[in-house]
Amino acid sequence: MDKKKNISMAVIKRLPKYHRYLEQLMKNDVDRISSKELSEKIGFTASQIRQDLNCFGDFGQQGHGYNVIELYNQISNILGLTKPYKTVVVGAGNIGQAISNYTRFEKVGFNLEAIFDINPKLIGIKIRDIEIKDIDYLEDYLKENPIEIGIICVPANSAQKVCDILVKNGVKGIWNFAPVDLVIPDNVKMENVHLSDSLLTLTCLLNDTE
Amino acid sequence: MDKKKNISMAVIKRLPKYHRYLEQLMKNDVDRISSKELSEKIGFTASQIRQDLNCFGDFGQQGHGYNVIELYNQISNILGLTKPYKTVVVGAGNIGQAISNYTRFEKVGFNLEAIFDINPKLIGIKIRDIEIKDIDYLEDYLKENPIEIGIICVPANSAQKVCDILVKNGVKGIWNFAPVDLVIPDNVKMENVHLSDSLLTLTCLLNDTE
Repeated sequence: MDKKKNISMAVIKRLPKYHRYLEQLMKNDVDRISSKELSEKIGFTASQIRQDLNCFGDFGQQGHGYNVIELYNQISNILGLTKPYKTVVVGAGNIGQAISNYTRFEKVGFNLEAIFDINPKLIGIKIRDIEIKDIDYLEDYLKENPIEIGIICVPANSAQKVCDILVKNGVKGIWNFAPVDLVIPDNVKMENVHLSDSLLTLTCLLNDTE
Repeated sequence: MDKKKNISMAVIKRLPKYHRYLEQLMKNDVDRISSKELSEKIGFTASQIRQDLNCFGDFGQQGHGYNVIELYNQISNILGLTKPYKTVVVGAGNIGQAISNYTRFEKVGFNLEAIFDINPKLIGIKIRDIEIKDIDYLEDYLKENPIEIGIICVPANSAQKVCDILVKNGVKGIWNFAPVDLVIPDNVKMENVHLSDSLLTLTCLLNDTE
């Protein structure tokens, strides 16, 4: 694990994909896999894979390939999946509701503790037994209930305000679905899911080939 | 527009962000902006911005900055936003419903024509006046109704099958939300929104700093 701190952002971005493929291999009872075989499945070059996996220890045995379970566990570890995370969803519109309903995340240790919204019509409604609370209560809630990950699903114009409340009250990870870039301090980490940007990338690619 | 074909994937990925910021500037009645000012807002370096925008024509006038509306229109053009797109959503679970309900896309020309699902409990239900159809009818529907963009929101294990039906029936753009990598022919373009990968990237970043 000593090498962990040196993992580049490019490698970090590829790790969840390795994790997904290794999980699939485990399900198919595959014990060992060479970088070449993994390369054919995952679409990165074998040399890229060897380089990536080298970042966090010596796994592959020359000529024997990687031990799938060992590699999966190591990547799970680096991805921080060996412990649970408490999360809140702020904004219970379309995306907020979809994320709140998505039980897949729960299975890998993401526990949704609370949902907040500003809309009086939504406050009090339950999603998977979790009652949507008034956003005015967000700050008090966070003071009493330490939360690791805040999931921002509010409109662009209120996202920074929500982000500031989350950060001020100890949230260290922001998963941002609002179509805006948020400002956070260095000790907080953020991942953006900018749906519109993704859709426009697709139309750009479509347009480029015409 | 002659330079368009040479735009790299890295630039394409940045274009939606330029588009978002320029839209905001227009809303704020800003006529002109220098690469330096844009850099401060958008977070890319001024030299990066000049290089990016140079890819598709001469816009900045030395010392006068960019004409905001002109640049916005040009980027809209490159992003393919000057025409409407017919879309279908396949899979009306949490994410499929959220995307179907998201009217923001409609405003910029993405017209949701139909929604499909396999679940008898969902078939017949309406989302924004669009009735959810039986997925068995997808292929026939596509033969009669040309669709540009297919939005895949089905579980991982049925995503490739859905993708194949879409591609076989003329869909040229795939927006994939299924947590799996799909195989498509070269003449089809795909953008993935892998939510789990994004969340695991966040926990990896969180874990990396501890």
